[in-house]
Amino acid sequence: MTLYDFKVSKGSSSGDIVESTSHRPTLTRDEIYIKITHSGVCGTDQKYRHYDMVLGHEGIGVVKAIGPDVKGFKVQVFFLQLCSYLKISRGDRAGWGWVHATCGVCEQCVEGQFVYCTGDTKQYGTGDQDQGSFGEGAVWREQLLCKIPDTLASDLAAPLMCAGITVWGTLTEYNVKPTDAIGVVGIGGLGHLAVQFANKLGCEVVALSGTETKKEEALKLGAHHFVATKGVSNLRVPRKINHLLVTKSHMPDLDQYKSILAPRASIYLFGTADFESKLVLPYMQFIVSGWKLIGCTTSPKIVYQRMLEFAGLHGIKPMIERFPLTKQGVVDSLKKLDEGKMRYCGVLYAEGV
Amino acid sequence: MTLYDFKVSKGSSSGDIVESTSHRPTLTRDEIYIKITHSGVCGTDQKYRHYDMVLGHEGIGVVKAIGPDVKGFKVQVFFLQLCSYLKISRGDRAGWGWVHATCGVCEQCVEGQFVYCTGDTKQYGTGDQDQGSFGEGAVWREQLLCKIPDTLASDLAAPLMCAGITVWGTLTEYNVKPTDAIGVVGIGGLGHLAVQFANKLGCEVVALSGTETKKEEALKLGAHHFVATKGVSNLRVPRKINHLLVTKSHMPDLDQYKSILAPRASIYLFGTADFESKLVLPYMQFIVSGWKLIGCTTSPKIVYQRMLEFAGLHGIKPMIERFPLTKQGVVDSLKKLDEGKMRYCGVLYAEGV
Repeated sequence: MTLYDFKVSKGSSSGDIVESTSHRPTLTRDEIYIKITHSGVCGTDQKYRHYDMVLGHEGIGVVKAIGPDVKGFKVQVFFLQLCSYLKISRGDRAGWGWVHATCGVCEQCVEGQFVYCTGDTKQYGTGDQDQGSFGEGAVWREQLLCKIPDTLASDLAAPLMCAGITVWGTLTEYNVKPTDAIGVVGIGGLGHLAVQFANKLGCEVVALSGTETKKEEALKLGAHHFVATKGVSNLRVPRKINHLLVTKSHMPDLDQYKSILAPRASIYLFGTADFESKLVLPYMQFIVSGWKLIGCTTSPKIVYQRMLEFAGLHGIKPMIERFPLTKQGVVDSLKKLDEGKMRYCGVLYAEGV
Repeated sequence: MTLYDFKVSKGSSSGDIVESTSHRPTLTRDEIYIKITHSGVCGTDQKYRHYDMVLGHEGIGVVKAIGPDVKGFKVQVFFLQLCSYLKISRGDRAGWGWVHATCGVCEQCVEGQFVYCTGDTKQYGTGDQDQGSFGEGAVWREQLLCKIPDTLASDLAAPLMCAGITVWGTLTEYNVKPTDAIGVVGIGGLGHLAVQFANKLGCEVVALSGTETKKEEALKLGAHHFVATKGVSNLRVPRKINHLLVTKSHMPDLDQYKSILAPRASIYLFGTADFESKLVLPYMQFIVSGWKLIGCTTSPKIVYQRMLEFAGLHGIKPMIERFPLTKQGVVDSLKKLDEGKMRYCGVLYAEGV
């Protein structure tokens, strides 16, 4: 029996990052052993560092071994590795995000909406807690793994597996039209990707950020307009917004955006908060304006796959800060993220890549 | 020059209903003079009774004269009136709702979304305040008038022009599928129509009402299930709701419905409140459940027209309480509505119809 041993970085009740070793026995069914090469660092990892679980849910790696039922991935043998170094082909690389496995048979699963699986599901923070993307390797089922297209580098793919999919799913699954005006509130990990995606989808993009600090970068990323919001109670935009993506990491004050929304606009919510937090809404204005408020999580696997292909085709590039895929790299990247200084996505790189 | 004089019932600062006479000169452009035969009575009329304006915005009548540019309506001459009595044909009847006229050229208008017109628009409470459906007649532009199909009686059409369209627009313009489960909160003017429409659209319908009083009627109208909600904090339904139409007349407490919503459910809001009222939302549960909250008003003209045809074809019948189309009838119907005793739509009938 083959044993797959791999070092991992875990949270702990004190919040300290702790190294440990996990292992999996011989691969069964559609399981795939992945040697992790890159991992994105997400705000949610910071929230889970106080739990005894392996952190990281934006993983990219190479396929090293496959179970008997795997259909779509091949093992990356030495020859393909060589090709990868020579940039001829990278061989089979796999990526994953928030959801690891689902029941596959409930109503949500058969609609492809895996994150809402009401059966036996394993997701970040609730299952498979002895492995994550902050580690040397992991074993996941093929069911939820995406193939990274040759057009996309692994370090650029990593932040797309959570930050990217959240905004991409919103921009492609909720009837956004290429002629719509998109507002992106918060130019951070999610926001700077939303600006790029929305631009390439043909939309008119308005970036909204606290101060002017990120103006130049936002315009370079594809925003057509930039609006500084701090302390401005009556915001103005060149064209009223049809879809407002509020990508700030915390619960927003919706009152601030009332003046910039078109009739029938949609407001998309992403930020996390305590489960007791209550969002307050201007009730009558919401109704008479025909506005929509939409809670956003993640998307079906096919939407991930299309995003990766779209990003490769159109040169969507997360702006990355590089850290080593080690305990210290995890500590440093989470610190920078927590301080609000990350520009814009932290990526952990395994040694030698 | 022909003068069109017609008696009307207005609100007043004291809230008393006041009779008055309005008039319009010779019809120009696409104007149509309508002799009103029926008017629905809506909760919004009760709110506007303290304003110096003619009340009523669910009007049905016969076309008595047309301006030079009218294309789709013909005057109901004596012969057609006779046919109407003999039930051979009713001739041209017209109906209208909240919106009377719009600029026709702004972005919202060219998308058919007249209620959101950002140009020169005349709507109930904001324009043409010397005429409404609580009167003998009115002059409206063809632009926003609907033709009442021969399959639909005028008294049944009246409540559809506001109560009906609000729920019909929701059920047909927001991706409701015939295989979805629809929850209708509040079995009143809007709710009892929503139940009928949803049933005929093929949906599984759950009626939710305070007590069991309306159970039998709700089931007869087309609800497949009935749930009494008063004082129940942990509601249960046979199947989780995909679309929840909260048709109560006031701002709802959304917390009560959390337990019955499917993942990715939509909650539709209709009730009125003060403009300062704030709706409170369970923020994180809203996000992780992928829920949507949608403010509902009224719909494009074509959606009205389709609703009237659908209602005629499928025998959708508002349950009606009859009042005379007189000052006293207005007073009595508003009183009954205000007391919450209307079952379910008040309709004012002109003398002789």
